[in-house]
Order: sequence, then structure tokens, then C-alpha cells
Amino acid sequence: VGTRSFVISIDPMSGECGPAQFMSGLAAFVSSSSCPEGLRFILHGKSQELESLVSAYPSLQDRVDIEHAPGVVAMDDKPSYALRYHRDSSMWKAINSVRDGYADAVVSCGNTGSLMAMSLIQLRRVTGADRPAIAGVFPRYKKSGMTIVLDLGADVKADERNLTQYALMGVEYARLLGDNIPKVAMLNVGVEQNKGPAAVREASAVLSKIASDPDAGFEYIEFVEGKDLLSGVADVIVTDGFSGNIALKAVEGCALYFSNMLRDALSYKFMGVPIVERGVMMMFPKLRYVFKRSDPRRANGGVLLGLNGIVVKGHGDSDDVGVSSVLGVAANAVKNDLSGRISLRLASLTEGEYM
Amino acid sequence: VGTRSFVISIDPMSGECGPAQFMSGLAAFVSSSSCPEGLRFILHGKSQELESLVSAYPSLQDRVDIEHAPGVVAMDDKPSYALRYHRDSSMWKAINSVRDGYADAVVSCGNTGSLMAMSLIQLRRVTGADRPAIAGVFPRYKKSGMTIVLDLGADVKADERNLTQYALMGVEYARLLGDNIPKVAMLNVGVEQNKGPAAVREASAVLSKIASDPDAGFEYIEFVEGKDLLSGVADVIVTDGFSGNIALKAVEGCALYFSNMLRDALSYKFMGVPIVERGVMMMFPKLRYVFKRSDPRRANGGVLLGLNGIVVKGHGDSDDVGVSSVLGVAANAVKNDLSGRISLRLASLTEGEYM
Repeated sequence: VGTRSFVISIDPMSGECGPAQFMSGLAAFVSSSSCPEGLRFILHGKSQELESLVSAYPSLQDRVDIEHAPGVVAMDDKPSYALRYHRDSSMWKAINSVRDGYADAVVSCGNTGSLMAMSLIQLRRVTGADRPAIAGVFPRYKKSGMTIVLDLGADVKADERNLTQYALMGVEYARLLGDNIPKVAMLNVGVEQNKGPAAVREASAVLSKIASDPDAGFEYIEFVEGKDLLSGVADVIVTDGFSGNIALKAVEGCALYFSNMLRDALSYKFMGVPIVERGVMMMFPKLRYVFKRSDPRRANGGVLLGLNGIVVKGHGDSDDVGVSSVLGVAANAVKNDLSGRISLRLASLTEGEYM
Repeated sequence: VGTRSFVISIDPMSGECGPAQFMSGLAAFVSSSSCPEGLRFILHGKSQELESLVSAYPSLQDRVDIEHAPGVVAMDDKPSYALRYHRDSSMWKAINSVRDGYADAVVSCGNTGSLMAMSLIQLRRVTGADRPAIAGVFPRYKKSGMTIVLDLGADVKADERNLTQYALMGVEYARLLGDNIPKVAMLNVGVEQNKGPAAVREASAVLSKIASDPDAGFEYIEFVEGKDLLSGVADVIVTDGFSGNIALKAVEGCALYFSNMLRDALSYKFMGVPIVERGVMMMFPKLRYVFKRSDPRRANGGVLLGLNGIVVKGHGDSDDVGVSSVLGVAANAVKNDLSGRISLRLASLTEGEYM
């Protein structure tokens, strides 16, 4: 990184979000307090389209460079297809900027499988990480802050070695977010030691051993169940990508379910007078907070951990809040050298002969 | 079953629920409209304790028989331990009543692993079911009724054969609940055909084939994601027991999360006057409905499918609403011969040479 200021490489073309929406979100981010001073952006995609979009936001003019990339990875492209036929795409080129040292992080809302495959090939895994993982953050009610959950779907299965490495990568991500001694747990079907698949029980035994070192820098609290994804008993929750992805989307579905029911309930008549939602919101300001906390866009920004470089993936259907949140995650990870910290942490796993 | 009236065999001793709470829930059920006329109960457990509890509810006097069983399966007993040392337990004896033809269904709030192990040994699998599964119901916002999800944790893994059988067992359960042509889906990490583990993709291919028969009695809508557990796009959602259990508990955790935040938000001051929750509830009666729908106790009553007999498992921490809901599920399954229907359905899988 050296003395130059930080640069985020952006793929605004991929995903249902679309470049116009992405640019609007980028402008919102640049004018927010989460945007570090001097941060610059490289936009990859159809240059004419991008230039005309950027020209609508004066705040972006001297912060962005545009690099032409004619291709776009579609949401339903298989990763193998994208790898073979989309080397001219905004996604590939955006990752390329990080590989060649022109940027410190990539942000894309494109299809996760292709983003992961292209990042793996270009950035490669950090030493000690057998597999990268997607980490996301969940809100919680018993404690302030967020709970980091991984893997959210980089791979559909994970053995005990993968799970252990996910846990250690999650520890570094948690420390980045301000948890100095994060509490780490494995997601399981019960809290008793004899429960769950062998890989989960074995990873749990290794993590207990590592955490017993007073300098481990995290506490291992063994198993938690699905309900604890939102409770706050753990700061990092580890699972395989299949269960993690299903749990993530179940929680998003739940947020939708409750928002729908709540809006329906609140658009009720009070003493014969219809009360619109906005009116109720004014009466009960804290209800705004419920909607805000239940907003899946705010828990946006999956980070691909375990690569030589920061790769952040947004929701396919992001809006201003979503795009801005994803960019904030990328900026924070770059500023604190998340990749370097993970690399050091995983080296300690091998040196300690824990596995 | 013959001409005698239906009988439910109850294990009120196991689980954190406790026999006093169970009896109170049983009395609530007996006086509700969900209780079929003439339905009788056999209570298994410490007879003195049970007699004294029953004597407090006149409505139970001529509906129950008490069978003495001195042992109790603890919530943290391993299934193998329970099988070896708890043949004198209320759980074992309750299942025994069904095996010996004295009862038509078992209800227990005890530990799921032991309940499954004891049921498997005594009742055995129905022909065609390689593995039993635990099915539960989820509320939904796009459609009335409930979505059946299985397996919720009978086993931590499932191959394509197990998943296919789970789907067919789920179809019969859905038809019991009133869905004549239920929509069936597989839970996956994406809706594209190339996504997910091999077992999921292979089971999906078999189910497509079966559902293409105009007499199949269900529609197969391929893959859904975690968010659809609560949306209502499918009536039956199939997954392995590890992911299913995590998803179930994630949704329960979500309900807790939102109830907590909502209660907090509503105990707010209105024009300087503190408004207690009860007051707000009176103002917005439909809010009651939100709490009611978000109440995990109402989605109670996991059913063990694939056994020669009905086995219904309640939450460990059930209250009156929970116990009553579990008993309602058992009564309904008995009345409609769920086990017989599942047996017929699975036979068609083998006869059709689909697998």
C-alpha cells in the first residue's frame, strides 16, 4: 500500500443493482462520514455509460478513474463459464486492479460464485487458508454491535480444518470491528458436546485447545444453536456454507415477515380515524428503530476472507443504503489490513501444530 | 384402530416442561374445540404424582388412564444411554402403548434424540422409509396456512434418497393439513439448477420426474432459498436435519429478536405520558396478531414421520399454548391415519422405479 492513499476497485455493472443505482450509492457513501479522506475509486465497465453516470455527481468527479471493460458477468452464469468467457468483464478487471497493485479492495454486487472463482484465481488464497469463506454480520438484541457469521456460502461443505480456519479468520474480522477478545462459537443442532456432525465436533475440539492459550486473543464458547445468530451470546459464529447461507436468508425472510405484519398492523384505525404508518411512526419514534434494525440492507456487505486482497460482495438488489454499507466495509478492511492479519493468524495455526 | 375411540399416549415427565405444566396444557386442550369427542389419554410416569395432578382438573377425570413408570429420560441423556438404561421410563412406556396397540399416538416433550431412538426400535420404520424425519410448521406472510419443513433434526445428514422420501412424507402431512395439491420445494443456496450439494440436485431431479405424473398429487417447484421458509411460495420445504434445525432455530431467534425490539419500542412515552404495552395493544388490536403470529409456541409440535405410529414431539419449555398445540397435531394425525398414508406414498416411490 505504501504512501499512496487507499483505492477501492469497483465492479458496478454486475448484479441486479445496476450501474445507475451503484453510482447513486457511491455518491451517498462519499458524502457520508464513513468515507475516509483521500479514498479513491476505480470504476470498471462500459466507459461511456460510466462517464455519463459519474458526471451527474460533482462529488465523484475527482475521486474516480474509469477503466473500460466491455463484458458483464450475468447473475446466472456458472462460475466455470464466467471464468472461461468473461475475462473482459468488469468483475474480472476489477479484481485485476487489486492483483496488479493499483487498488486495495474490490467491491461487486455480482454473482457470488463467479466473484469467488475469479478472486481465487487472480488473488489466490493466503498461506494457511485451504478455502476462502464469505463472512457477513447479523444484528443482535442482547448486546450492541453485530455478530459475524461465516461461511455464508463460498462452498456448500466444510471439513473440520476448513471450519477451524473460518473461526480464526472470523476472529480477525471481529477484532477489526472493535471486539478485542471476541467470543467464538460453532453453529450446531444442540449445545451438548456429543451433538452434530463429526467435522463440527472435531473443529470444536481444536478451537478449545487454541483458545486455552492466554494469548489466543479470543474466547471459545463451544456450540450455539440457530437462535443465537441474533442473540449476541457469540461475536463470531462458524458454520459450513450450506447451513450458513440458509440461515442468513431465513433471517432475511424473517425480517420481511415481521416488517410486513407490523406495517399491516400499524395501518390500523384509531378511534375510527385511519392512521397511516407515517403518523404512527411520529407517535412512536422508537418504532423507526425497529424498522431500521430489521432492515436487511444494513447487514449488507459479505466479505470474502482468506484471499490476498479484500473482496466485498453486496446484495444483488442493493439500493443507496446497501451500496454505501458495502463500501464502508471495504474501506474499513483496507484501512486495518484485514488480509495481513488473517495471514498471520492462520500461520499461528500451523506453527502451533494444532492441526 | 377398529371401533374403539382414539387414544393418545402421553409422556408428561420428560423435558423442561414438567408434569404439572403438561397437565395444565392437557386440561386446556380437552376443553378446546381441537379435542375430538371421545378422545382418551394414557399418562405414563410416577403414578402418585400424576394422580394428584389429574385430581385438580375435573375435566380430565374420566378421560385419562395412568400407567406407572418410575424412570425419566433426562434432557442431556445420550440416546444410546437412554436406550440401555431407561426401559422403565415414561418415554419408553408411552411409545410401548402404541406398539402394543393400546394407543394411536405418542406425545412427549423429552429429548428428541432419545424419543427418536426409542420410537425407531419399538415402532420401526414404515416400509420404504430409510430414515424417519422430524417435520414442523412455519408461519408465512404471502399465503394463509403453514409451511411444512423437514427434516428439522432427526439426523444431521441426508442423501438424495432420504431427501426424496422426506419430500413424499411431507406431501402426506401437507394433505392432512388441507393442502390437496401441495407445492413442494428443496431448500438450497440458490434457485439455479447447478447450485448446491449433489444430494440436493439429485433428489430434485427425482422429484421432478415423480411430479410430472398427473396423478402425483403434488407440484414440484424445484429450489427455494432460506427466505422462503416464511414466504409461502412452497407448502412443503425439504432439507437435511442439520440445516433444517439451524433454520428452525434461526427463525425462532428472529421471533424473539423482533418481539424484544417491538416491546421495547412500544413501551414509549406518548406526549410525555408513559404508555404501557397493554395500553398500546388496546389501541392497535392488530398488533396482538403480530405477537400471536410471532409466538414460537404456536408453531409447536414436531411430528416424527416415517414410523409405524404417530410420534409428536413438543418443545422442552412448552406452556399451555404449546402443550395444547402439540396435542392437537397428534389428534389430527391419528384421525386421518397419517402413518398409513405415508406408507402408501413411499410404496409408490419403489413401484414407480424412480430410485
